[in-house]
Amino acid sequence: MQNIVSTGIENALLMRALRGEEVSRPPVWMMRQAGRYLPDYMKLRAKYSFFERVETPELATEITVMPVDQVGVDAAIIFSDILVIPQALDFEVTINPGEGPRLPRTVQTEADVDNIVVSDIEDRLHYVMDALRLTRSTLPADVPLIGFAGAPWTLLCYMVEGQGSKNFAKAKAFCFTQPKAGHKLLQKITDATILYLKAQMEAGANLLQLFDSWGGLLAPNDFMEFSLPYLKQIVEALKPHPMILFAKGCSHAYPEFTASGAAAIGVDWGVRPGEARKLAGNDITLQGNFDPSRLLGPIPEIERMTREMVEGFGTQKYIANLGHGILPNVPVDHAKAFIDTIKSFG
Amino acid sequence: MQNIVSTGIENALLMRALRGEEVSRPPVWMMRQAGRYLPDYMKLRAKYSFFERVETPELATEITVMPVDQVGVDAAIIFSDILVIPQALDFEVTINPGEGPRLPRTVQTEADVDNIVVSDIEDRLHYVMDALRLTRSTLPADVPLIGFAGAPWTLLCYMVEGQGSKNFAKAKAFCFTQPKAGHKLLQKITDATILYLKAQMEAGANLLQLFDSWGGLLAPNDFMEFSLPYLKQIVEALKPHPMILFAKGCSHAYPEFTASGAAAIGVDWGVRPGEARKLAGNDITLQGNFDPSRLLGPIPEIERMTREMVEGFGTQKYIANLGHGILPNVPVDHAKAFIDTIKSFG
Repeated sequence: MQNIVSTGIENALLMRALRGEEVSRPPVWMMRQAGRYLPDYMKLRAKYSFFERVETPELATEITVMPVDQVGVDAAIIFSDILVIPQALDFEVTINPGEGPRLPRTVQTEADVDNIVVSDIEDRLHYVMDALRLTRSTLPADVPLIGFAGAPWTLLCYMVEGQGSKNFAKAKAFCFTQPKAGHKLLQKITDATILYLKAQMEAGANLLQLFDSWGGLLAPNDFMEFSLPYLKQIVEALKPHPMILFAKGCSHAYPEFTASGAAAIGVDWGVRPGEARKLAGNDITLQGNFDPSRLLGPIPEIERMTREMVEGFGTQKYIANLGHGILPNVPVDHAKAFIDTIKSFG
Repeated sequence: MQNIVSTGIENALLMRALRGEEVSRPPVWMMRQAGRYLPDYMKLRAKYSFFERVETPELATEITVMPVDQVGVDAAIIFSDILVIPQALDFEVTINPGEGPRLPRTVQTEADVDNIVVSDIEDRLHYVMDALRLTRSTLPADVPLIGFAGAPWTLLCYMVEGQGSKNFAKAKAFCFTQPKAGHKLLQKITDATILYLKAQMEAGANLLQLFDSWGGLLAPNDFMEFSLPYLKQIVEALKPHPMILFAKGCSHAYPEFTASGAAAIGVDWGVRPGEARKLAGNDITLQGNFDPSRLLGPIPEIERMTREMVEGFGTQKYIANLGHGILPNVPVDHAKAFIDTIKSFG
């Protein structure tokens, strides 16, 4: 029997849109909505290191709830990082402000993969689950809480390369020259991710998103070999929980995403709304895809382009969002103009 | 009246493919074919700075001809850099090995744009034309010589940002918040580029390629506003000389590229051959699109995937190439395996 809280959640616009049910207007949230464009976030950032913020449930909760209160988004996404999975697999991650992440331990050979042990994921990442529980009890009962993880391919990129890269050529070379080792590593990451996402749902997440930030670095056939099968495994293992697949630069794979049973496809700003719908078909919800750089322009332009975007996607089976994470230098009232324009469709 | 040299050139596979004429097999060359994967190039790189190599016609010629002799490509592309245009507009460019390019002077305001003077482009870049003349007289008479330039949008990215960037958010913000200044700058770059490419043709180039490396950072509608009109101006101004448009991540614009009167579209590895043909239609030649990272894998795989690529594109109205520049760590015999597989279609 469902309790009052989950009934409230299940009627939320976002949950309805994910099930393809009729909505009065599209729900809206923004990737990286709990981020550097918010002055209150910057205050916490000045006081606590990145991992202090991620690993202290009270801080993660405060940050997660912030954009719900301050810009009025319809859902919260837990403040965390995709690299907690490599951390839980004993790959240290350091993040210095202004630099990208660094992983001193990397994977270069099949033996390196064999040395990776998948165990106690839920225990290693207990602070995420603690933050989810605290956030769930802090958020209004009708505001969905989004859990997330990085896609196995994207995490492999970091675990092989040891840092960010323009083309992740080392990661690709690893998979192309040692495909057996590549697939073994992807499977281990997948196993860990499934445990992690199940724990997130148990701890209070209401839906999930997978981020395949570097899926577009793979040619279509290579994406089908090194990314898609693992995304499908994760979607399958988490059923019936709703999953949003966001794979940047991978519109070629939308038909497969629809067939996977995912609840929604996150569309990046490189794809026109009509084209995304054509590729994905009519049986899945789409999410996206405002170019975050466009939030730097004047507010009347933001309003006009936001309306154009909704007209392109339609108001049903649609979740309004950016096509990538919000930029640090976006003025808060510009972000609000985006949100308010979506709400004006109600 | 055509002389013997130009008659030889006009019958070359590449020139025939650009005109859509029947060929016995697809012509083949590789983006960045005169590059760091060649041991003889590395010897010159150890002795001379980047700009010494670019600005000394004897060195540029030696480097340009190298891959014709050593890996057997069907065409040479002049050794130079897209950033010579900003240089000719008085924007100093420094390149330190291991770092990307840096431009100490940048464009931030409309006044900065107004201060840019387009004049004496041919004179400022005489060393490129000298290198083209020397290369043309050095190359076998039937091997086409490719001239090139950066697309105006891509050059704007560097002139505003002052260095490479993952998302060129500053360059986009400049265009979105000061569109008038953005268009003025794009027009000045376009004017300079037209002068430059005309001079290249007069100095011995047989065809041209425009590189819009960062076109894919623009959403489709923004590409139509800030990149396409300038590409079209350049194609138009250079007619009847054959132009290849290579815009990474811009397959959405292929119909417009075909309509522009360009001779060919350079396809990146993110697009399936059949999809590229569908988007571009049947009236234009396609070029591409082997993933350079795949040249790191075993030779039998390279041969198999190269054949697959040609089967996807077909042997007519097609120029075999990579989908992006060759990587420094590709073994020379792997590059040769790619070239030889294409030649086996003859």
